[in-house]
Amino acid sequence: MVTRRPTRDDVAREAGTSSAVVSYVINHGPRPVSEQTRRKVLDAIRRTGYVPNNIAKSLANGTSDTYALLVTDLANPFLAQMTKALEHKLFSLGKTLLVGDSSDDPSRQMELLESFQRQQVSGLVWYGVDQPLPMDALETYPGTVVMLNQPEGQELSPSAGRRVRLGLDESEEARMATAHLIGHGYQKLAIIAGPRERLNSRERIRGWKRAIRESGLEPGQEIFVPYTCQGGYEAAELVDDQVEAVFASNELQAMGFLAGMAQRDKKVPDDVALAAMNGTDQSAYLIPSLTAVQLSEDEIADKIAKVLLKPDGAYQDTGDDGDDKPGGYETSVAPTNRSDAPVRTGLGTIPAAPQLVIGRSCGCSQNEV
Amino acid sequence: MVTRRPTRDDVAREAGTSSAVVSYVINHGPRPVSEQTRRKVLDAIRRTGYVPNNIAKSLANGTSDTYALLVTDLANPFLAQMTKALEHKLFSLGKTLLVGDSSDDPSRQMELLESFQRQQVSGLVWYGVDQPLPMDALETYPGTVVMLNQPEGQELSPSAGRRVRLGLDESEEARMATAHLIGHGYQKLAIIAGPRERLNSRERIRGWKRAIRESGLEPGQEIFVPYTCQGGYEAAELVDDQVEAVFASNELQAMGFLAGMAQRDKKVPDDVALAAMNGTDQSAYLIPSLTAVQLSEDEIADKIAKVLLKPDGAYQDTGDDGDDKPGGYETSVAPTNRSDAPVRTGLGTIPAAPQLVIGRSCGCSQNEV
Repeated sequence: MVTRRPTRDDVAREAGTSSAVVSYVINHGPRPVSEQTRRKVLDAIRRTGYVPNNIAKSLANGTSDTYALLVTDLANPFLAQMTKALEHKLFSLGKTLLVGDSSDDPSRQMELLESFQRQQVSGLVWYGVDQPLPMDALETYPGTVVMLNQPEGQELSPSAGRRVRLGLDESEEARMATAHLIGHGYQKLAIIAGPRERLNSRERIRGWKRAIRESGLEPGQEIFVPYTCQGGYEAAELVDDQVEAVFASNELQAMGFLAGMAQRDKKVPDDVALAAMNGTDQSAYLIPSLTAVQLSEDEIADKIAKVLLKPDGAYQDTGDDGDDKPGGYETSVAPTNRSDAPVRTGLGTIPAAPQLVIGRSCGCSQNEV
Repeated sequence: MVTRRPTRDDVAREAGTSSAVVSYVINHGPRPVSEQTRRKVLDAIRRTGYVPNNIAKSLANGTSDTYALLVTDLANPFLAQMTKALEHKLFSLGKTLLVGDSSDDPSRQMELLESFQRQQVSGLVWYGVDQPLPMDALETYPGTVVMLNQPEGQELSPSAGRRVRLGLDESEEARMATAHLIGHGYQKLAIIAGPRERLNSRERIRGWKRAIRESGLEPGQEIFVPYTCQGGYEAAELVDDQVEAVFASNELQAMGFLAGMAQRDKKVPDDVALAAMNGTDQSAYLIPSLTAVQLSEDEIADKIAKVLLKPDGAYQDTGDDGDDKPGGYETSVAPTNRSDAPVRTGLGTIPAAPQLVIGRSCGCSQNEV
């Protein structure tokens, strides 16, 4: 029994291999290690109690293998799936993920940002409170920052770190879902929006209004409730009797609205149709199944990880994203006549491709779960 | 513009305060700081670009302000709520949380454990794959380990670190929900269990069987499907026609079962009643609202945080948990004639108090959402 702190050599001896191989296992490279040897080394690490000191390594490098994700609500299924996908992707690259839940509280959000900075995270992924964004803090953040929901009109300036914006156009997602409802022939529409003061609530209203305007319909009813099941449930009481179709700003609201309608013995889609945005795997199991604009969280996680892990400026889209659209993100001024991937001066944009997933809530009754 | 790395003194000068106050803000103590001063210091930190180097601090201490949570599925609403509650609690104490999602993969789970260990987390909270638990790895884990779902018959030995078990008796939760269904007069029962090989699937079956046996009823139908919406949806096709009441092993299965029944034009609870365990805030918004055994994630997070942050042996339940049950957890042999909080030799147990939350799925029609 050794009483001193075990070293990498102790592990190598225990595993019957070399100290270099132990290092490859610990650092996920640079050389490959067979699964059998890897298991031997991991067993030896456990037996000896060796702790490969990443903290010492971080200090030497000035960086860490840790990234941070800041979201507004970890219990929101959309954000939970996004968190899971990002954690999986980073883990597959030997990285770990710190998570923070701001609970829509700007001061808590700021403290989390500071806390991540103290931990010297190598990058930050941000899905934050948007009323308004703490642009000062973000612009001076030392590492790469990926913004998942930067609203229109909030421009980041170029700065020391890298700032990359996910090309999520929430207004466009709202427009897509609403246009689908209008395509069914519904003329009187309502929106279950988020809280009135929220920028992303306004974004979603903007897209919903655009679909209505483009179809020459009358302006619809705007219902402001929290982004929760309870919010959607309350919206079912507030919706005007003559409304034929409702657009819900997220899946939780849609879920609550369905419960509220069922409680009042109203049928969806017969009495009122429903579509939403930010749907998840759960959408197919609501009653009726929910028509919703969805994003592929795995695809988004892949793209975020690419941006986080590539050194400044080295990233070029290699065309492996399964489409032939031009490059993933760009760090210089570029022509902006592509509506699918707005590019900002000096900033990158990751394109996102929202898809309308059809359920039965909109009236597309031929579709099964 | 200074080009050297900014120091705490630079921040103090910029904020017009002392270096000590800057330290209090950064370290959340030991002295209180007024909100106004705190904001000044935080602004100064941002303006100067000062990074309080927690990594250097960790190296000196051999510990970190970081804790880790390992769960089987971050997108499961029950685990998402638990994660959120624990993150909030730790954050309020100035700590951050690393999360890992094992996706029910034992080798991935092991790699996550190792990864957390390399990050020198100060404690680990574990809701892992239970087929079987990697007891070697857990017993030699250097910090405090809190086990959230240690099944019966898997005993941990005392070791260098502290091992605390959450007193979650999943068998008892299954029994509670099933006994409620039987109380309604249903005689032919089924269980939507998890995968056959899973220990926690067997635990839940055991509790369900016990309720049936204690009521003198015939054994019921066992349906083995994944712990997902799709699993529950498939169970709706597999359930025997004569079954009067179904117990679902988790909320996702219950959700899928409700969708499957609706798809087949069967009514819950009229054609078949339903109750579940590990319900969440969403349970009230299913159609019909779901009767489910629930745990208070905030209460559990409080208890976990207490155990993680108190030094060895110093923890005594101060009776602030709102009940008069005996102490929070114990680290020595104790009489085990309390059925609500099993105590293991040399290990701690945090009591958990499951509650049956009544919805309409069981037939309790007087209850509204």
